[in-house]
Amino acid sequence: MAEETRIRLAHGGGGQLTAELIAGTILPALGGGQRADRLTDAAVLEAGAEKLAFTTDSYVVQPLEFPGGDIGKLAVCGTLNDLAVVGSEPLAMSLSLVLEEGLEIELLRRVLASAGAAASEAGVAIVTGDTKAVERGGVAGMIVNTAGVGRMLPAADLGFDRISPGDEIVLSGPLGEHALAVMSCREGLSFSAELESDCASVCGMARSLIERLGPSVHFMRDPTRGGLAATLAEVAAACGRQIEINERAIPVNRTARAAAEMLGLDLLSAANEGKLVAFVAAGAGAAAAEILATDPLGRRAATIGRVGGTGDPPMVEMVTAIGGRRVVQMPYGEDLPRIC
Amino acid sequence: MAEETRIRLAHGGGGQLTAELIAGTILPALGGGQRADRLTDAAVLEAGAEKLAFTTDSYVVQPLEFPGGDIGKLAVCGTLNDLAVVGSEPLAMSLSLVLEEGLEIELLRRVLASAGAAASEAGVAIVTGDTKAVERGGVAGMIVNTAGVGRMLPAADLGFDRISPGDEIVLSGPLGEHALAVMSCREGLSFSAELESDCASVCGMARSLIERLGPSVHFMRDPTRGGLAATLAEVAAACGRQIEINERAIPVNRTARAAAEMLGLDLLSAANEGKLVAFVAAGAGAAAAEILATDPLGRRAATIGRVGGTGDPPMVEMVTAIGGRRVVQMPYGEDLPRIC
Repeated sequence: MAEETRIRLAHGGGGQLTAELIAGTILPALGGGQRADRLTDAAVLEAGAEKLAFTTDSYVVQPLEFPGGDIGKLAVCGTLNDLAVVGSEPLAMSLSLVLEEGLEIELLRRVLASAGAAASEAGVAIVTGDTKAVERGGVAGMIVNTAGVGRMLPAADLGFDRISPGDEIVLSGPLGEHALAVMSCREGLSFSAELESDCASVCGMARSLIERLGPSVHFMRDPTRGGLAATLAEVAAACGRQIEINERAIPVNRTARAAAEMLGLDLLSAANEGKLVAFVAAGAGAAAAEILATDPLGRRAATIGRVGGTGDPPMVEMVTAIGGRRVVQMPYGEDLPRIC
Repeated sequence: MAEETRIRLAHGGGGQLTAELIAGTILPALGGGQRADRLTDAAVLEAGAEKLAFTTDSYVVQPLEFPGGDIGKLAVCGTLNDLAVVGSEPLAMSLSLVLEEGLEIELLRRVLASAGAAASEAGVAIVTGDTKAVERGGVAGMIVNTAGVGRMLPAADLGFDRISPGDEIVLSGPLGEHALAVMSCREGLSFSAELESDCASVCGMARSLIERLGPSVHFMRDPTRGGLAATLAEVAAACGRQIEINERAIPVNRTARAAAEMLGLDLLSAANEGKLVAFVAAGAGAAAAEILATDPLGRRAATIGRVGGTGDPPMVEMVTAIGGRRVVQMPYGEDLPRIC
């Protein structure tokens, strides 16, 4: 394939093209020597005696408000979730705004109130920030960035290298609700009001898993851009193993499924913003799903698959509802611009 | 004044209107109970036994590359500087990109190489990041956000409440070079090539001051948006004291002065991106300037003023070059959109 010379929308989709941009351009140019195939949701660093997690995300979602959330809540939950899935307890957050000239201050107020409420519900303070303004048309309303610092939980021992053959894969709830709520709202579909983004903090669920199952929790991720498909494809590649999931076991919301069919989207690769995927030791799947189900966000948690042997190439396969087998590809990245 | 209902460019200028937006809308909406008049460049937080500094900034500068720097170097130095002036040693940074569809990847590569070089020169790793893409016209090329975590230096004891009558004010070098380099470049002025942004990390200078003068260093800030005028006006308001500066003592670059005259800008309120203002104990100004001058960035460091008694209202006054007195106002915020 000829090397790309210009940025495409798909470079921001969280799929294959994003991965190529990060591995081929961003990391080499930054020169920090990081391995592109070992990137986790948050970096872990040492500060004296403390082990910290540190993460950031920028949010460009359109529209700024959608059923179930808005860019403020999304920005807070997204960063909290990145801290949670690496096994840390969120400690503090930053929030940085780029505002468009002409933006209604009342809208800004609503979005920030929603961000503040999400942070306070998780018991985390927004301690620092920044505000820039650009000319009309310079951004679409606003862009929000959040960064977060967490303290690693002592009981957390997570990493790609801990994923082992036989590990069970547990998903905390139905797929694709964020992407489908935003897309339906954007397209003006009639059921858009019924369909709400799952935008929420998974901190409570992640913490319960680690506190109750300790080292049996091997790896966690929140399947955002690129959905479950991207998460599993990335994990398979990073640990060099086969992954098998079972379509019948995957919780799905009926309205989301209908919307996906109407919009021609695959629920597997649609973004979630309040879901957790955990890789736990063989035999621990049912216990993990039970722990997740005690949280209102995890009521429909289920064991959806398992890790197999070494794969060459490592691959994700799904046993379909009618008993066939289908390879789950890393999404290319073009489906859903500005979904988060 | 009637309450504003829409965002204006001046809301992002770092002056009075930015301060009003933060105090009147942003902090109340977020609901975290922070005092708007006590915001420092970075928040200080406790993680177990460690005291950490945490900060963020988004960068929207246009053009993306300018004499003396680019948006990547600016984003890294800006965050390093915010960590440095609160008395911390930078530990790690994040870098988050919002890219415009159609952006040349070669330009992205240059900007990131420049960001990476600035981080590595300061001995700090960029450990986490994010990449989003938006449609053509969605942003002007790219927006960069950086956040940073630092460890507080044990010898640092800084804060608005440490500023005392008689404190001497030391500035590390000539004013306004960043703003004037960017504006000259934007306006296509002929001397734009001679005029370079001062964009640099002040970490070394800040650290030397703290290590050598310890508790005699009472407060530090890097005078970015809104320039020295905004920094001093904010400090005067926060500590409730009069501040007097001496125009003749303020180091100025001749080309910057000529550019400022041509563009109708005031050097006092023009943005700097590699300068440090330190408030040190009475009698310690000369020593501080000498310490700064051992760093190539601080060659022209000078004591430029002092803190007076309690002021009602607290005010910044400048003894002008011809011996008059002029009140230095907090800039309103409209002069220089997209300067950082």
